[in-house]
Order: sequence, then structure tokens, then C-alpha cells
Amino acid sequence: MPQNIYDDPDFFEGYSQLRRSREGLAGAPEWPALRSMLLPLEGARVLDLGCGFGAFARWAREMGADNVFGVDRSEKMLARARAQTHDPAITYYLADIEHLALPDASFDLVYSSLTLHYIEDFGAVCVMIRRLLVPGGRLVLSVEHPLFTAPRNPGWRTETDGSKVWAINDYLLEGRRVTEWITPGVVKYHRTVASYVNSLLAQGFHLVHLEEWGPNHEQIAEHPEWADEVHRPPFLLLAARI
Amino acid sequence: MPQNIYDDPDFFEGYSQLRRSREGLAGAPEWPALRSMLLPLEGARVLDLGCGFGAFARWAREMGADNVFGVDRSEKMLARARAQTHDPAITYYLADIEHLALPDASFDLVYSSLTLHYIEDFGAVCVMIRRLLVPGGRLVLSVEHPLFTAPRNPGWRTETDGSKVWAINDYLLEGRRVTEWITPGVVKYHRTVASYVNSLLAQGFHLVHLEEWGPNHEQIAEHPEWADEVHRPPFLLLAARI
Repeated sequence: MPQNIYDDPDFFEGYSQLRRSREGLAGAPEWPALRSMLLPLEGARVLDLGCGFGAFARWAREMGADNVFGVDRSEKMLARARAQTHDPAITYYLADIEHLALPDASFDLVYSSLTLHYIEDFGAVCVMIRRLLVPGGRLVLSVEHPLFTAPRNPGWRTETDGSKVWAINDYLLEGRRVTEWITPGVVKYHRTVASYVNSLLAQGFHLVHLEEWGPNHEQIAEHPEWADEVHRPPFLLLAARI
Repeated sequence: MPQNIYDDPDFFEGYSQLRRSREGLAGAPEWPALRSMLLPLEGARVLDLGCGFGAFARWAREMGADNVFGVDRSEKMLARARAQTHDPAITYYLADIEHLALPDASFDLVYSSLTLHYIEDFGAVCVMIRRLLVPGGRLVLSVEHPLFTAPRNPGWRTETDGSKVWAINDYLLEGRRVTEWITPGVVKYHRTVASYVNSLLAQGFHLVHLEEWGPNHEQIAEHPEWADEVHRPPFLLLAARI
């Protein structure tokens, strides 16, 4: 059974307090970069893997998507998504991403935000996404950057001159990592950048864009607490087409 | 003027002692990975950017390449390459990679090993390589991995439990780095993985393979001193076609 940390009451409570949970897409600093990789959406049939509270599904409809199918394994998140959504063209579906029973070639765009680093077998997910997309279909995803997921004991260290460095180990050793984020015992799966890219290429995807996201000057001016993120990108964004 | 550290007597002497200099391709641990990205070579017209002592040029001819054009900015390296080469289909040429005067669409393969991190403007090099390749032509390159080039003070740190970590900072701040390697004052240019990939995509290249090279189990068994390389890959390898 995959971990379902999002239905843990303490985790859910903590997650609900995050800026990105309270403010939706506008509260996610990487959103402007993702947004530019997603448009245009007119007429698109969209699948959102790890849809959470449904903010992306509602935005995609505003941008002209024909319909959006949101999948999540958290009942609590889907309950809130349903309560906030009044759109018959958005469907929320409780399921594990690894075991989706959906028809072939039924989507123009597959989107996944900060979800796939919880999935052990990314290669199998690429096979499934390829199957679900129409020819010419697109995939846009974000995950925690491998520099973030690699370390056994992730965190900043202080140099003798007082500056901060991010301590990396085991980057090339892929697999399970158990870390504390909101609550202890959160299970993620570390993969290299190469592994994300080559798993897509192996399924015939063409890579369109790769972004190692960090805050820009304007964002740092507005949020000085993000300045350290330039030392190592927190997110990896990928766009590909089939 | 770009730096020409390889003609510095102390640097050249130190570089000549490296295993990869003494043993040629067999002395480069990443060579088996690169080799599999390069074949087949029958009938290919090949350009080697940063050809050094010419080991790759001679190997490419053994593999059936029609001819090889090796470019380097070091007179000392080319003098040794010429002394070791007796093959009229191999030409060595003293030039800066940034200012090559070669005809359009004249190569089937462009290869570059551990050279392009010395070049400030990788985007301009991508424009040039695209121009020099025939349609369907290929590019295979290796560079120092961005995790290696990023830090202002690159090196291992020791954790309180005695384990080693690689200290990262300024990963997202691209540009000039001055480090010590063989001699002090070696100038390199740090770029992110994303920057290498997107510069190629921007010129219409299709990414074929991305490898963050580290030693495999057999190599670590033979060279236990390489074990730490799994903590952060030393090399980035890329294969693309136009």
C-alpha cells in the first residue's frame, strides 16, 4: 500500500495551513513558471494527477479546458475539492495514481504538481501517461528537485564564515527516503534529474522544457526568506509531448 | 581572450600525469558511458571540440569514421596529438571553439569531452553546432556536472557522524568560477543542468539521453577511492540530435 500521509489528521491540518493551501495557485511561488508551460488550454481534456484541493482543475476550466479529471488518493483533500467546486465538467476521483483505470488516448494534457516524488515507480507512470495521452498530447509536471530529495539528512549547514550550504549525499542512490515535513515519517522516492528525463524519453516523449525552479529577483525582493533557495532549486519542472 | 590554462607549463605537466592523459580513453571512467552514446560511427564526419591529445579522434577512425577534425586551443596538446597520429583523415586545428570558421552542414557528429564548461556562452556554441551539423546529425558531450561547478568553495565537508557531504551553494547563480584544479586560478563557467538542456532545445535539438555519471558497482570495487562520487555526480553527459 502506498503511503497516504495526506489523510493523517496532523499532516492534513499542517498542510492546510501552508500558503499554497490557503491561497491556491497564487500561493505557490513556482506557479508562474508552470503556468507558462501549460497554456494554451482551450478545448483541452485535462488529467490532474494529485489534484489536492482542486485549485488547478478550476483554473484550467477558467482557461477554457473542456473538462478536467482530478485524481487524488486523499479522501480529505477530495472532500474539500468537491465542496469548493461547482462545475459539472470537473470530476474528482479517489484512486492511487499507480492503478488508474482510464481509457487510452483520452487526454490532451496530463498535469501533476508536487506529487510524483511520492511514487516509487516513475517509469510505470510514464507508460501510463503515454497510454492516456492522445498523439501530440502534453505532460507538464513538477516534483521536489532531486537536490532536495537526495540527502539522507536534508538541510542547511553553516560554513565557518557563517554562510549557508546545502549538504548533498547519496544523489546517485535512488529510492526511498523518510523525512520530516509537517510531520515525521513522510515517505518520498528520490530519483536523479537524469532518471526523470530518461524515463520520459524511453516512452517516446520529446522533452520540451526543463526548469530547475528558484525565485527570481522580484520574488526575493518580496519574500527575502526565499533568498537561500538560489543555493539549490527546490523544484524540478518538466514539459514534454508525445 | 579566453583562458588557455592548458598551455601553462605547470598545468600541462600536472594534466599530463592524470590517468586519463596517460591511458587515453581507457583511463577515463565515464568513457564506457560515452562510448555507448557515440556508436555507430561508420562513415561519419566527426568534429571533436577540445580534442586534447587526440585519443578520441584516433578511436573514432578505428570505429569507421570517415574523417575527424579535432579542435583545441592548446598548442602543446595539439603538438602531442600530431606526434601520436599517423592518419591523413585526422586533422588537428588550433582555434578557439567560440570562433570556428567551418562550413555549414559539414559534420555528422559533434563530440566534446570535458571542454564546454570552460566556455562562457554555451548558447552561442549550440547555435554554431547546429549550423555545422547535417540534418539528423548528432551531438554527444560531457561537462563537469553543475553540482561540481556550482560551489564557490567546492569540496567535501565532514558531518558530526564522520560521513561526507558535498556542500552546494549558488547553484542557480550561473557564471564564472575560479577554482584550484592542478593549479590555482582555473576559470570555469557554471551553468545549471536546465541551462545545458534548454540551450540545446532552443536550437531545435531533440534530447536523446541525459546522464549524471557516477561509478558503477564494478568500478567502485576496482577503485574504492571513487566510492564518494555516488554522493554527487562528477560529470554530466548529453546526447542530442538535430
